[in-house]
Amino acid sequence: MEDLAIEKQNKTQNDLIEKIVSLAKRRGFVFQSSEIYGGLNGCWDYGPLGVELLKNIKEEWWKFMTYRKNVEGLDAAILMHPRVWEASGHVENFTDPMVDCKVCKARFRLDTLGEAISGKKKEKAIKGLHEIVEQLPEELERLKALTEGKLNDEASLTEAFDSILEDKDLGKKLLSLLNCPQCGNAGTFTSARQFNLMFKTFIGPIEDSSAVVYLRPETAQGIFVNFLNVQNSSRQKLPFGIAQIGKAFRNEINTKNFLFRTREFEQMEMQFFVKPSEDKKWYDYWKEQRIEWYKALGMSPDKLRFHDHPKEKLAHYAKEATDIEYLFPFGWGEIEGIHNRTNFDLSRHQEYSKKSLQYFDEESKEKFVPFIIETSAGASRSFMAFLINSYYEEEVNGEQRSVLKFHPRLAPVKAAVFPLVNKDGMPEIAQKIDRDLRPFLRVFYDDKGAIGRRYRRMDEVGTPYCITVDTQTLEDQTVTIRERDTMQQERVSIDQLLSYFQKKLINSSLDF
Amino acid sequence: MEDLAIEKQNKTQNDLIEKIVSLAKRRGFVFQSSEIYGGLNGCWDYGPLGVELLKNIKEEWWKFMTYRKNVEGLDAAILMHPRVWEASGHVENFTDPMVDCKVCKARFRLDTLGEAISGKKKEKAIKGLHEIVEQLPEELERLKALTEGKLNDEASLTEAFDSILEDKDLGKKLLSLLNCPQCGNAGTFTSARQFNLMFKTFIGPIEDSSAVVYLRPETAQGIFVNFLNVQNSSRQKLPFGIAQIGKAFRNEINTKNFLFRTREFEQMEMQFFVKPSEDKKWYDYWKEQRIEWYKALGMSPDKLRFHDHPKEKLAHYAKEATDIEYLFPFGWGEIEGIHNRTNFDLSRHQEYSKKSLQYFDEESKEKFVPFIIETSAGASRSFMAFLINSYYEEEVNGEQRSVLKFHPRLAPVKAAVFPLVNKDGMPEIAQKIDRDLRPFLRVFYDDKGAIGRRYRRMDEVGTPYCITVDTQTLEDQTVTIRERDTMQQERVSIDQLLSYFQKKLINSSLDF
Repeated sequence: MEDLAIEKQNKTQNDLIEKIVSLAKRRGFVFQSSEIYGGLNGCWDYGPLGVELLKNIKEEWWKFMTYRKNVEGLDAAILMHPRVWEASGHVENFTDPMVDCKVCKARFRLDTLGEAISGKKKEKAIKGLHEIVEQLPEELERLKALTEGKLNDEASLTEAFDSILEDKDLGKKLLSLLNCPQCGNAGTFTSARQFNLMFKTFIGPIEDSSAVVYLRPETAQGIFVNFLNVQNSSRQKLPFGIAQIGKAFRNEINTKNFLFRTREFEQMEMQFFVKPSEDKKWYDYWKEQRIEWYKALGMSPDKLRFHDHPKEKLAHYAKEATDIEYLFPFGWGEIEGIHNRTNFDLSRHQEYSKKSLQYFDEESKEKFVPFIIETSAGASRSFMAFLINSYYEEEVNGEQRSVLKFHPRLAPVKAAVFPLVNKDGMPEIAQKIDRDLRPFLRVFYDDKGAIGRRYRRMDEVGTPYCITVDTQTLEDQTVTIRERDTMQQERVSIDQLLSYFQKKLINSSLDF
Repeated sequence: MEDLAIEKQNKTQNDLIEKIVSLAKRRGFVFQSSEIYGGLNGCWDYGPLGVELLKNIKEEWWKFMTYRKNVEGLDAAILMHPRVWEASGHVENFTDPMVDCKVCKARFRLDTLGEAISGKKKEKAIKGLHEIVEQLPEELERLKALTEGKLNDEASLTEAFDSILEDKDLGKKLLSLLNCPQCGNAGTFTSARQFNLMFKTFIGPIEDSSAVVYLRPETAQGIFVNFLNVQNSSRQKLPFGIAQIGKAFRNEINTKNFLFRTREFEQMEMQFFVKPSEDKKWYDYWKEQRIEWYKALGMSPDKLRFHDHPKEKLAHYAKEATDIEYLFPFGWGEIEGIHNRTNFDLSRHQEYSKKSLQYFDEESKEKFVPFIIETSAGASRSFMAFLINSYYEEEVNGEQRSVLKFHPRLAPVKAAVFPLVNKDGMPEIAQKIDRDLRPFLRVFYDDKGAIGRRYRRMDEVGTPYCITVDTQTLEDQTVTIRERDTMQQERVSIDQLLSYFQKKLINSSLDF
């Protein structure tokens, strides 16, 4: 019974993702990249409505984060000096373990090799492994612990299989027993090697190791290396932050879940430089600020949570870390990370560049390397979360409507203009309204089909206001404005329209 | 006499560039990328003020281009399917000729090899070449024509030398006579080979030819391949355009002139799809629109011009083309190109993707591949042009001031708030003004130094309005607003400040 209920819910959740992906393509939010050539895995293009939604998310983040006295903006290049990635640890550590088949040259990520091999073959290999280690008491013990009671169903079996592969000795022996899933030959795997997830390219005419540069896998390093340039030019004192929005690239082997795990994506990062003794205070401050930002822009509070990283799972640079997670249809997923990175980054860049990155505190007359509190949000992931969060199916007067209940600040189109019928001078008035609003707002003009259908089309892309020119307009120069979520209408004088929208959309501060 | 005058003017122009590069670094407009590691050639980072100027330029372009009924926005990925660049012709044609030294492996761009070799050695090699071709009447004729009277001064000599290298037969023979500028060995050059200017990388785990992808060298192709996706989702009919802002990358061998020729840069491109018979009309329309945009944002009309490409120099895809050029200190330089690309791009993508990219015209019931009128502006180059264009040195009451006379819409900081003195309640009032304006505008607060010095600091970064809280403020709740260019002051009531700036900066349409 319970299984059935979960299965049904999973199906509904998958349906939801499918519906949204389909809506996203049909209405011009997101297209597969290079689609006419069959697509490029892990890359997506934002269409006419998507680019507006993405721009609005980034603009709200930028204003919220940088229109403060103590945060400065930055836009650093994607290509950076290769030493940056040695200092950051990415050259050494930003890797996944991979194995190659020596015969057919196919390559597999070690932690997903299990998925590529059938259950029967996994089971056979594990049994073979038992025989091999029978005379090795210690290894046999480990193997028993990893497989106990787990060979009954496919999921547990795969789990046990993956755990064995992670074990250095057992993993090597298991690999030697496997058939390559591509060519079928047995015992052809190399031992596991680390594969770096950074895209690399060559700068200048010569393709040798001295010319290697990387596409940045994160925007943060552009901030660290500019710490002193920004501080000197802006005359900021601690505590202060540097904020940046930009593209980053990771050569993920397995991309998945639409915009959630992609190879090219956009980040919105802020690094806040503080005295070491004030790290906890600012970590707590930014945690609160950041989750409130999502809520203020309409994300459901019950679909947002913090996931604090336990001490033993912290990254090498972090003293404390939490994820802001959103409840996606496939489960909780990180949309932002907040980290106390200590003085790790600046110390490393100081060491590798031989340039002092110390800060002189005028009050205490002390020199030290500042601590950093980082807020690292995914613009692409936030886009996906805001899109899913706003999607509703509702029944209105016996009819179904799909509606994207975006916060008006995020909505791609702010207002639609409809002449009720295409005669009696209504189109002329509607066109004038459209023309007058257009320099200030993204407006959409539609004179096709029944008014109800026009409302539905705008609901589906989340337009918060629809303006209709009707017979009364001809008499008193007023129009109706229909609000998307309540579907309430009010009459507004045409000459008040611009200030009506400016009040609603531009000249109001967000409610934090 | 004339030479001296030119030399003096060149010196002044170089001084100007140097001054601006220095100001750009000191005040946080532009930093060298990865500077603490010695920099990465051809890449630049935008600092706190630079990122605002760049954002404002892009935002004005976006509004001007896409807040129209017939233009849609797009944000396509930087990584695209590799076939895109075969269809576009970039794999084959986007190249520079290069030669390698077989001994020391140094590589030189053929058209700049002359610069690396001393005048004496060039002269000697040309003389040697004369001897070699003496028995070959045809080649000797060509050689004489190329060198006649040009061996007297370095500039003419280099010109002759470069022309010889461009000649297939003579070039090969000349190369065989040269010493490598790096290792000094003679006759060690390979023949010239084409070097592709696209950055290439590998997608997925395996670094072989099937996994090669390129960093896009232009944003336009992202628009072409999305033509039908955008048209279908937006229900646009011809003529209509698709606009996009984004990064592009070119592995230039010689970067130069600050932001003018860089390896990573940003483009603002619009592709306008038209009926073939209407190409000329729309080409002329967009030429006019685009140059007016620069003027409306304050670029000096006498420093802007069209440079029409002569028929014989048109790119392979173009029927008609013009550059909008700005008069930089180093001479006229392209900041935007406007091209009639015919149906070249869509036809090629149709051929390579095997997907129909035809448009069905409902009126004429005809199917055809649309023509494209392209407006391709450099965001980074426009940034540089706007920065230089706004720079003035003036004498004010016997004192020198440097001022950036940005259009208020482009200015990085919109208003500065100063308490006249740090007492009598003035800081509290000034801070409240700062706080109230900050959600809407980028504001800067400064309470340090004499008021004249504070004005100068704001002039130097182009802040159009300075608000001062003085003794009269304490009596009547008014402040002075001082305008940057006229330096005139007016008194405004504090409660009118927000609407004062909204009127000046947000709620007014540009004057085209």
